[in-house]
Amino acid sequence: MSLTIGVDVGGTKVAAGVVDEHGRIIAKLKRFTPAASPGGTIQVIADVVNELLRQYEIDAVGIGAAGFVDQTRSTVLFAPNLAWRDEPVKKLVEERIGRPVVVENDANAAAWAEAKLGAARGQEQIMLITVGTGIGAGFVLDGKLYRGRFGSAGEPGHYRVVPEGRLCGCGNRGCWEQYASGSALVAKARDFARRTPDAAVRLLQLGGGTAEGIDGPAVTLAAREGDIGAVRCFEIIGAWLGAGLADLSAILDPGCFVIGGGVSEAGDLLLKPAREAYEHGLTGRSHREFADVRLAELGPDAGLIGAADLARTG
Amino acid sequence: MSLTIGVDVGGTKVAAGVVDEHGRIIAKLKRFTPAASPGGTIQVIADVVNELLRQYEIDAVGIGAAGFVDQTRSTVLFAPNLAWRDEPVKKLVEERIGRPVVVENDANAAAWAEAKLGAARGQEQIMLITVGTGIGAGFVLDGKLYRGRFGSAGEPGHYRVVPEGRLCGCGNRGCWEQYASGSALVAKARDFARRTPDAAVRLLQLGGGTAEGIDGPAVTLAAREGDIGAVRCFEIIGAWLGAGLADLSAILDPGCFVIGGGVSEAGDLLLKPAREAYEHGLTGRSHREFADVRLAELGPDAGLIGAADLARTG
Repeated sequence: MSLTIGVDVGGTKVAAGVVDEHGRIIAKLKRFTPAASPGGTIQVIADVVNELLRQYEIDAVGIGAAGFVDQTRSTVLFAPNLAWRDEPVKKLVEERIGRPVVVENDANAAAWAEAKLGAARGQEQIMLITVGTGIGAGFVLDGKLYRGRFGSAGEPGHYRVVPEGRLCGCGNRGCWEQYASGSALVAKARDFARRTPDAAVRLLQLGGGTAEGIDGPAVTLAAREGDIGAVRCFEIIGAWLGAGLADLSAILDPGCFVIGGGVSEAGDLLLKPAREAYEHGLTGRSHREFADVRLAELGPDAGLIGAADLARTG
Repeated sequence: MSLTIGVDVGGTKVAAGVVDEHGRIIAKLKRFTPAASPGGTIQVIADVVNELLRQYEIDAVGIGAAGFVDQTRSTVLFAPNLAWRDEPVKKLVEERIGRPVVVENDANAAAWAEAKLGAARGQEQIMLITVGTGIGAGFVLDGKLYRGRFGSAGEPGHYRVVPEGRLCGCGNRGCWEQYASGSALVAKARDFARRTPDAAVRLLQLGGGTAEGIDGPAVTLAAREGDIGAVRCFEIIGAWLGAGLADLSAILDPGCFVIGGGVSEAGDLLLKPAREAYEHGLTGRSHREFADVRLAELGPDAGLIGAADLARTG
């Protein structure tokens, strides 16, 4: 049995797991990320991997990090939630653990996992879209991870869906993630509760009495209970999501969209309106096939599992 | 010297050329396309190829056609300007010419030509965007033509840039090609001339006295002469073009955009505002590299040259 370690490096925690060739996690450890310290983050990764190495025979290590990774999969060029700037992660970790290391963008690693071992097994053209606070993505095209010329591919959350639209954290206006993300869902529900509190009794109750207290899980719970306003919030966000999938299909014609991220836990509340808008909006829909729109299967561990598989397959 | 034949099958004419391995056209023939007759179109292709075969030693034939081509590059599934519906073009032409045939979408063939022999030589991630009556496209990703799951990739002309925007021939609203194509340029100039004829004297003169008479070459000529209104039309269309390139970069991060099609003959009149809007609109522009935005080099023969090269390289 061949085992590798996958490491998921986020802004708040480092998770490392021993993974077998079927994507099963045999053991897993977590540590807080000293995100402000580039070297400290490297050391925590090395420590947690070394702890696992004492117990398991491991061939290689894959690191998935939230940031831009260079073409050689060695250096993290820029990570919004870490202090890494042109950090030679591969070299520094290899020196400390004595095993070959591969570094990959975390969304790419998750897309790889879903394509090889998860919701899109057997598909050659897949787009993973993670709907969380923002929108993340990773693409497997013709069976391979697609990184782009400068390693910056897979940021559809920042393509423009509304000219002169809502201001985005990236500095642009009208980005997709301002309309189809978890933040957009919560903003919509809060706005609804503020303007028509009498129609938002359940949402306000779940929010502890204030619109500001309403969060994503509250909207999901209310919608599951059948609350009309909460259901409508999902329909609106889902329609924007599906319209974006139609745009991505016009451009890239994938066979499968895998929808992950926290908001996808709402299941059909999100996916049904998304599929409808996708099928309604796809150009040339009368003489082409629709892509599947599926929920992710591997959950929050997808990045870790994918990084471990990339360490195995190179 | 290895020679192949490339055939460009359009709705009005069939062009066939003998091409060497450097992409030089040694000989070329043209015929009218009997577009309403599926079999007639096959026969014209066979006739023109056989005529060239009598004079040159040819290894293989590539056919670029305006339509959806299946994954095996054998059958044209649907062609908007031809009567072909699930037409087994490869088999039918091979039977009539006795040489191996490869069939490819014409925009894909042109993208291949520009990537291998034209404006983007040596680049691995290129997007050809042809700005003509509409917007066409072909993508070479990681050194290979990208076709998508169902052969329908490369239709960014129909991604939505304006919700509830202008009605498009595809049945949707707000498609990119309604804002950034030659048709959009001409519509803008005609509208300008209708509403403010006193400011559009030169445009109206070139249009034979009426707004309806203004065509693309008239707008280009007036703009080249410095006509303010015509220049402004290019700036508006160019800004929409560049905004779309920024979206495509957010998604696919190419190293090079190659801009072709009839409107690209206006050169910097189109490219300067497009580059400005692209650089202004690219997400994360402070910590990433810009793609090159270049004019196509191979002109209207790109599809023919690319089809010939695909016949050679398989």
